Amino acid sequence: MVDGIFAIAMTILVLGISPPKPDISEAQAVLPGQIFNLFPEIFIFIIAFLILAGFWLDHHRQFHFVRTIDSHLLWINIFLLISVVLIPFSTDVAGDYPDVHVAVLLFHINILIVGLIFSYHLNYISRSNYLHDSSADRKALRVLFYQYLLIPGIAFSAVIISFFNPSASLLVYLGVPFAKYFVERFGS
Amino acid sequence: MVDGIFAIAMTILVLGISPPKPDISEAQAVLPGQIFNLFPEIFIFIIAFLILAGFWLDHHRQFHFVRTIDSHLLWINIFLLISVVLIPFSTDVAGDYPDVHVAVLLFHINILIVGLIFSYHLNYISRSNYLHDSSADRKALRVLFYQYLLIPGIAFSAVIISFFNPSASLLVYLGVPFAKYFVERFGS
Amino acid sequence: MVDGIFAIAMTILVLGISPPKPDISEAQAVLPGQIFNLFPEIFIFIIAFLILAGFWLDHHRQFHFVRTIDSHLLWINIFLLISVVLIPFSTDVAGDYPDVHVAVLLFHINILIVGLIFSYHLNYISRSNYLHDSSADRKALRVLFYQYLLIPGIAFSAVIISFFNPSASLLVYLGVPFAKYFVERFGS
Amino acid sequence: MVDGIFAIAMTILVLGISPPKPDISEAQAVLPGQIFNLFPEIFIFIIAFLILAGFWLDHHRQFHFVRTIDSHLLWINIFLLISVVLIPFSTDVAGDYPDVHVAVLLFHINILIVGLIFSYHLNYISRSNYLHDSSADRKALRVLFYQYLLIPGIAFSAVIISFFNPSASLLVYLGVPFAKYFVERFGS
Repeated sequence: MVDGIFAIAMTILVLGISPPKPDISEAQAVLPGQIFNLFPEIFIFIIAFLILAGFWLDHHRQFHFVRTIDSHLLWINIFLLISVVLIPFSTDVAGDYPDVHVAVLLFHINILIVGLIFSYHLNYISRSNYLHDSSADRKALRVLFYQYLLIPGIAFSAVIISFFNPSASLLVYLGVPFAKYFVERFGS
Repeated sequence: MVDGIFAIAMTILVLGISPPKPDISEAQAVLPGQIFNLFPEIFIFIIAFLILAGFWLDHHRQFHFVRTIDSHLLWINIFLLISVVLIPFSTDVAGDYPDVHVAVLLFHINILIVGLIFSYHLNYISRSNYLHDSSADRKALRVLFYQYLLIPGIAFSAVIISFFNPSASLLVYLGVPFAKYFVERFGS
Repeated sequence: MVDGIFAIAMTILVLGISPPKPDISEAQAVLPGQIFNLFPEIFIFIIAFLILAGFWLDHHRQFHFVRTIDSHLLWINIFLLISVVLIPFSTDVAGDYPDVHVAVLLFHINILIVGLIFSYHLNYISRSNYLHDSSADRKALRVLFYQYLLIPGIAFSAVIISFFNPSASLLVYLGVPFAKYFVERFGS
Repeated sequence: MVDGIFAIAMTILVLGISPPKPDISEAQAVLPGQIFNLFPEIFIFIIAFLILAGFWLDHHRQFHFVRTIDSHLLWINIFLLISVVLIPFSTDVAGDYPDVHVAVLLFHINILIVGLIFSYHLNYISRSNYLHDSSADRKALRVLFYQYLLIPGIAFSAVIISFFNPSASLLVYLGVPFAKYFVERFGS
């Protein structure tokens, strides 16, 4: 269920890149510029793809610790998927209007919500009794928890920055790998 | 087969939320209002996602009891999938025109049909000889049957309400969890 | 590979049903008629879904007999998938213009090609040395072969009829279950 | 993960073939010509489908040799998938404007990038210590490596040819099977 929805959401991200449709007669002259103008859209597509890929891998890593799914965990996952499935939509809007605050804000808030649900998900798992091996796993999950606060933290700072400079706020996500490296190194 | 189609139908629900496409020059002024106006669409998207997720879980629970699939059960499933695959379409229409009776009615009837096929599906399974353990299973299936009449029942009441107030009739589905709780508690 | 592509093709069939987009102000008056006019489109959607579901089940039944895939069988499958993936497109065109000969013809030819590749597929399998149990399987495959010529046969007669009455030619596929019943009964 | 994304990317290729939407009144007269004009689009769709199918099979063949996935290999795969998911987009643009250099160039560069990442992928696998059986596998991988340079090589020559004749450059990919045959025969 989760795997399929992640894969489909990641692939239909591409449908948000609107192919230019100039008249055939003008295409020779107009198309180069229009394709060049797509690069912000493709950039946001790549960022969204990477974030979704990261969430997916995290989800696998988290479920590695879980033995059984209770109905509460099921509901967390359903709301997680709802916010994941909305990402192609908010990516589309942000890609079309990377300079407009409200469009970029929609994207950041979507990522923020996914990130917060993920952190709650991890927190719930680490407190539950469904873990395979409690003592060892709790330690591993504590490390993960710091990493999971990272994405909502970065999304939150992107929200702040978007009030001053919408398009620059999209670049904040490029800091994720560096931040992850630091947390993995010093966060535990 | 069933799993993939459910996952894809749930994900392409998002394609029904039409991203606003104002001119770049006007976007700064116009986009906030247009995004705000999307909230009914996003609300209906979430309701449709939750209903589909519920159907999916129910389908898994039902198939848990089945040992072999005969050709009649196969046909029930195919017609079930046809009506499931139509949900992204009817959700799209209802999301675009939540105040127009016929648009909302299309959505309710689609949910009603899926719910009725599901009830018939359960009924067929509980009478068939393909069950693993007849006596215990029949008892469990009787409980489920009450739950399954719930969704078509709620969709039917939404149909009635839609004649008086189309957009209010969409809120009826919010009662599903409460109704489910009551049926699980007192229905058996 | 094959399963995923069938499931996706069947689900994106629904994207071919173009939701009406009247102005909000006119929607109350215009939408009922526009939704009513969608019924031919929904009818063709259901026919295409049923044909694809049938092909899918047939593919499973055929692969039941196969032990290994050689590179020739792989290529047959790739061309099969290409023509399967085109069905949502030709269904879309035929659903938009069910009275226009060329639109309906496109649909029939697409079904015809899928059906012919399937028959060739079966023929190749039944001659190959990859069968589990040659003597019993060859007999079972002979029965199947008659059934497989059925779909291209019906598509071919739909092609002929489409020259006289395009929209009536779409109804020909409703005869598939009856024809299948006869072939299963008397064809072997 | 990889399998699902390939299957979805291959299927949504079909969404790039834009169905003609003439007025109902004109459809009878105009549609035949418009459908005839779609053939270049369908031709490019088929080429893109075949290239993606080839990449998919290659990916399976490569992973056959891999025991464990380290984080570097994971990142190669994520960037591979990003460029794969972009193919439906670049195919759409090239299919709409097969005579415009920049549109066709976008397609060639996309294929080129996927091909280069694949070659790097193979190179990384063949040097890593995650192989099942080093000596035998390294020999098999050397043969594959020649085949893998083939696709970027052909895409690169298509880039060159596109400067002189955009639409002819799309035909270059028809040479892939022949080139593959020669490499398999004499390349090792």
